[in-house]
Amino acid sequence: MENATTTSKIHLGDGDEERNKRMSSQTKNTIDFLSICGKLKRTKRTGWTKYEEITQHARVESVADHSFRIALMAFVFGLQQQREGGDEEEDKEEKVLDVQKLVTMALVHDIAESIVGDITPHCGISKEEKNKLEVEAMQKLKETLGDVAGETIETLWLEYENGSSREARVVKELDKLEMLLQASEYENEYKDVDLTEFYSSCDGSFKTENGKRWVEEILRRRPVR
Amino acid sequence: MENATTTSKIHLGDGDEERNKRMSSQTKNTIDFLSICGKLKRTKRTGWTKYEEITQHARVESVADHSFRIALMAFVFGLQQQREGGDEEEDKEEKVLDVQKLVTMALVHDIAESIVGDITPHCGISKEEKNKLEVEAMQKLKETLGDVAGETIETLWLEYENGSSREARVVKELDKLEMLLQASEYENEYKDVDLTEFYSSCDGSFKTENGKRWVEEILRRRPVR
Repeated sequence: MENATTTSKIHLGDGDEERNKRMSSQTKNTIDFLSICGKLKRTKRTGWTKYEEITQHARVESVADHSFRIALMAFVFGLQQQREGGDEEEDKEEKVLDVQKLVTMALVHDIAESIVGDITPHCGISKEEKNKLEVEAMQKLKETLGDVAGETIETLWLEYENGSSREARVVKELDKLEMLLQASEYENEYKDVDLTEFYSSCDGSFKTENGKRWVEEILRRRPVR
Repeated sequence: MENATTTSKIHLGDGDEERNKRMSSQTKNTIDFLSICGKLKRTKRTGWTKYEEITQHARVESVADHSFRIALMAFVFGLQQQREGGDEEEDKEEKVLDVQKLVTMALVHDIAESIVGDITPHCGISKEEKNKLEVEAMQKLKETLGDVAGETIETLWLEYENGSSREARVVKELDKLEMLLQASEYENEYKDVDLTEFYSSCDGSFKTENGKRWVEEILRRRPVR
């Protein structure tokens, strides 16, 4: 402990008190923000919790688990789309998606859940109320982190929520694809589990060529019953 | 099921058989890759498992949980560093870190563990053997995903492993910071747990100003004993 503290001492030049103060405050805010978001490691994805076969045998995935894989999916999607140079109708105007935006948006798309939890359509909370709670939570997260970083993350989150860019629409597809891939994995591991409701809820959701191809492949992997 | 399958049908133009074949193969490879990486949701971070207070009361975090938060840390670090315009010695030559590289490197830095598991210094495997196993696992992941995406991810992973760029050196600091933040959170939740060994193992690891400030703040949050 003592060593760790000692070696991490910061050596500041003279006459830089104001910057030091600002940086100290930024550091405190950053660790506060990261601690709140860390709660997603323990926030279970509500959808699976009503299936006993899953809760009894498996460790129900966390929102952080889901967020990790959707960010990885976004990265792969972005890299592949860059190579193909776009193949959707709207790609004719604007060739490639912004990979950094795709990945970081996927990473933060669920962070409001660190405050309000994972609210699903079965929780008895209306879509409007859920949205209101999440917008407030995101506002709080932005204020906690502060600065340009807080604003950037809130902007990304709102863009996702409102589906107001091509990247946001792709991440919305990936959100469903990650869920369906997890569903097919649970079904293959626990043969008695039938997660058809999750597939049905995504009916007609896929507009991008990759999205359509990926969902077909995931469906192909469901166990035969 | 039937609906979901039907609406996800892909309508192809004529005479595009070769592209279709290539895309089908790419899709299969992508879902294979994402399924392997999905194992990180269930791979426990070995370091915590010997502490009964943690394993009994908490859900030990997964490698995916850790990877989610380190990627988020990398994003915040990158955004803040962009704003400050760099403040390290070497920043004088090269102003800002590549945020996309920081985030995506953090995201993939542990994916070889989806095949070999989370090997720690206490596992009885030498550092050289661990590295060999992980390099082979990463090679397998690259081949599974294939294409430019597979190569890009392997390159990022190797850059991280070899610490061969400024971004890699930052992500190595973040890897330790994320662990220490989790340690302080466990210690605050389970007052009997003393995780000093984790802090000691990071002694002298922090070279960036942000890294030094963040670790000081994390140490400040350890419970008083």
